[in-house]
Amino acid sequence: MKKADVVVLGGLSGITAGISCRRHYPDKKVILIRKEGTVLIPCGIPYIYGTVGGPENNVIPDGLLENNGIELIKGEAVDVDRKKKVVTMKDGQEIGYEKLVFATGSVPLLPPIPGIDKENVFPVKKEFDYLSEVHRKMDDVKDLVIIGGGFIGMEFADECRKGRDIKVTVVEALPRCLQMAMDNEFCDEAQAKMEETGVKILVNERVEAILGNGEVTGVRLSGGKELKADMVILGIGAVPSNDLAKKAGLEMGFKNTIKVDRYMQTYTDPDIYACGDCAEKQSFFDGRPTGVMLASIATSEARIAGANLFSPNHQNCGAISVFSTVINGRAFGVAGLTERVANQIGARTVIGTAEAPDTHPGGMPNSCQTKVKLIFSKDTGVIMGGSISGGKPVGEMINVLSACIMHRMTADDMVKFQMGTHPALTSSPIVYPIVNAACKVVIPLRGSL
Amino acid sequence: MKKADVVVLGGLSGITAGISCRRHYPDKKVILIRKEGTVLIPCGIPYIYGTVGGPENNVIPDGLLENNGIELIKGEAVDVDRKKKVVTMKDGQEIGYEKLVFATGSVPLLPPIPGIDKENVFPVKKEFDYLSEVHRKMDDVKDLVIIGGGFIGMEFADECRKGRDIKVTVVEALPRCLQMAMDNEFCDEAQAKMEETGVKILVNERVEAILGNGEVTGVRLSGGKELKADMVILGIGAVPSNDLAKKAGLEMGFKNTIKVDRYMQTYTDPDIYACGDCAEKQSFFDGRPTGVMLASIATSEARIAGANLFSPNHQNCGAISVFSTVINGRAFGVAGLTERVANQIGARTVIGTAEAPDTHPGGMPNSCQTKVKLIFSKDTGVIMGGSISGGKPVGEMINVLSACIMHRMTADDMVKFQMGTHPALTSSPIVYPIVNAACKVVIPLRGSL
Repeated sequence: MKKADVVVLGGLSGITAGISCRRHYPDKKVILIRKEGTVLIPCGIPYIYGTVGGPENNVIPDGLLENNGIELIKGEAVDVDRKKKVVTMKDGQEIGYEKLVFATGSVPLLPPIPGIDKENVFPVKKEFDYLSEVHRKMDDVKDLVIIGGGFIGMEFADECRKGRDIKVTVVEALPRCLQMAMDNEFCDEAQAKMEETGVKILVNERVEAILGNGEVTGVRLSGGKELKADMVILGIGAVPSNDLAKKAGLEMGFKNTIKVDRYMQTYTDPDIYACGDCAEKQSFFDGRPTGVMLASIATSEARIAGANLFSPNHQNCGAISVFSTVINGRAFGVAGLTERVANQIGARTVIGTAEAPDTHPGGMPNSCQTKVKLIFSKDTGVIMGGSISGGKPVGEMINVLSACIMHRMTADDMVKFQMGTHPALTSSPIVYPIVNAACKVVIPLRGSL
Repeated sequence: MKKADVVVLGGLSGITAGISCRRHYPDKKVILIRKEGTVLIPCGIPYIYGTVGGPENNVIPDGLLENNGIELIKGEAVDVDRKKKVVTMKDGQEIGYEKLVFATGSVPLLPPIPGIDKENVFPVKKEFDYLSEVHRKMDDVKDLVIIGGGFIGMEFADECRKGRDIKVTVVEALPRCLQMAMDNEFCDEAQAKMEETGVKILVNERVEAILGNGEVTGVRLSGGKELKADMVILGIGAVPSNDLAKKAGLEMGFKNTIKVDRYMQTYTDPDIYACGDCAEKQSFFDGRPTGVMLASIATSEARIAGANLFSPNHQNCGAISVFSTVINGRAFGVAGLTERVANQIGARTVIGTAEAPDTHPGGMPNSCQTKVKLIFSKDTGVIMGGSISGGKPVGEMINVLSACIMHRMTADDMVKFQMGTHPALTSSPIVYPIVNAACKVVIPLRGSL
């Protein structure tokens, strides 16, 4: 029987967990088992349909595994015998382990809409051949309906329109697209940018039925209106992929995730760890379980899990929730809590906003106005979250905020921040908006501290 | 006699100090006194000669002062009577103050090179009319020699070549350009990028004399070689502009800077503060005086000084040294110590390096390979500094490092960092190079901790 010190089940966060393990324990043998022949960069999937040109350009090279001394076994694990410490593959092969990592990720949520099984209705699976087929078919599509105006839905809409003569409509049940992720003013800005492209966004609308005789021909909305459609993309969300974990008898937690502690060790078995979308998460802020699924969280968890396998002492501080997106060339990012969520939990807050061009002077080429909104606790002065819209640098500005949040910086700390600035790369040091937004809350905070 | 609660003397950091004061003490009257009719964005000065097109496009708008309720007085302050608390202007006007802030900045260092006073030899002063004249004359220049291969010199070389039929030569006394600021491998990369443009760089060479009969015609190097030149730019460095501070009897510190404590209060007079290039700085790391002059430090000091004027309690944690530059389209940044400086002080270090494209997949448009080098203390695991080269996001990646350094994060902390990633904006979550560079030092550190 084949045997390894560590067997990892799964995709993206599995790669990171494996690499982390090999870094911390270079003498351990690691095997990664995965169903997919080829692994796609998950966040790159919408870009297959526009900027990147096809799924073959969005592949995580297996060389990454080879370079890190990780053996790859392609195939489906169908059973885990925790007593014998053996994984059984679909073809009957058995693989022994000392430590096992579940990094089995998530699969698209399928809403109970009548007609969802019609031809040319596609949930966003992370499978190469499947997405290739969608890509091929996309070229003949005239009327694309996207159900769900979250990140996936909006990014698909933005990409599918590129280089195609196609009518794209996004149907969102909430009053605003991206509303689960961003504050109203940023949702509105994103929606306006999207509408500039000709993409239609219908909010406060549910799809009640998917129409057609075999092949999809349209959708019927809750208001009774019908939309023509020769393809439907489902971007509603995802659910953990945990059939095997349940079969193995692991305790499940919030929303069907594997229950893990701060070391990413499962509650059930000290030799089994879990990380990524399949594992339960606690919020960095209130410690409660949260259903958020993000690459920033999954890879951090994977690095922690890999490091802890043979000596659990690296603690997960909880999910901060850091992400960014691009809509029609404008970037949007959030780190930590939005004002909406802070209000929902009843926290007293002070908000600071600032904006500035991301070059100085603003007349430099490719300059882009950047808007920053920071949320501080009115009681402690500690940063709770921040939102930013602007140009390409937003992707890293949001990471500046992530570092500030992780270290529970106060507004006073952030006022003293020494930020490097350069005419072609950043805002001017006088108006650098992260610092200036923090500056603006100092007086409102002082009154309350 | 005119009187204000706060009088600020000086330019860029004076604006920030004034705004900070008004934010913290909205009922205080603030007057800013400055010699210059128009204030230029200092870091933007090299860009006047290329990308930005002229000094008129690189001006800090006085509206910034108006919007913050700060009165501007244009003119030269020539005397400070600390007993009477009165500033006297060149035209005899007297202005009373309760608190005074020196933010008088720096002036270019003039090296004792024979012939330095010849026509068309220009130190980089921050004066509008002066720089306009240089701009006008630049159009007729055939052979430009830049003395000094630091940031200013390299940025001038990169910009002056743009849109001009001009031969540019940089003369640097050290073995590498930018050597005071960056580690060897980054200096070499910057030099190679610069040489691609046709700019010539001579290292290990000193200018011994500036030649010509009235107007400059060339320079003579230490090796005896002569270079043709119809214009010479001096980019050797800067010295504090502290004549008035000395006349006012303020205690001077390291390299002719005004001695201040952690509150930016002068040692001599509790009603006088100083910030920016004219004020003494301590290193964040060893607490020793340092001569570094950067916008990131000056504006942080100005925010601290302004906040402390009527209640000193905000402490300056010391100069981290965070900056970035762009050479022929490639960005370079450093936060904290370089490996060279860490070695000079005899610290035991562990170095982690990583590189990755700043999009994922790397095939996204405008993708740029990013190189990260992090330096950790071998004894404590705490980050000491980092260097990055790459595309536009480097400007903010260096600020991620600044936040990590300010909070004395360890490699283990940084391994757990939750960084937001997006295909068009950042590296992939699997290879995000700041985190991966930290991951690589975990084992070498564990052996030593």
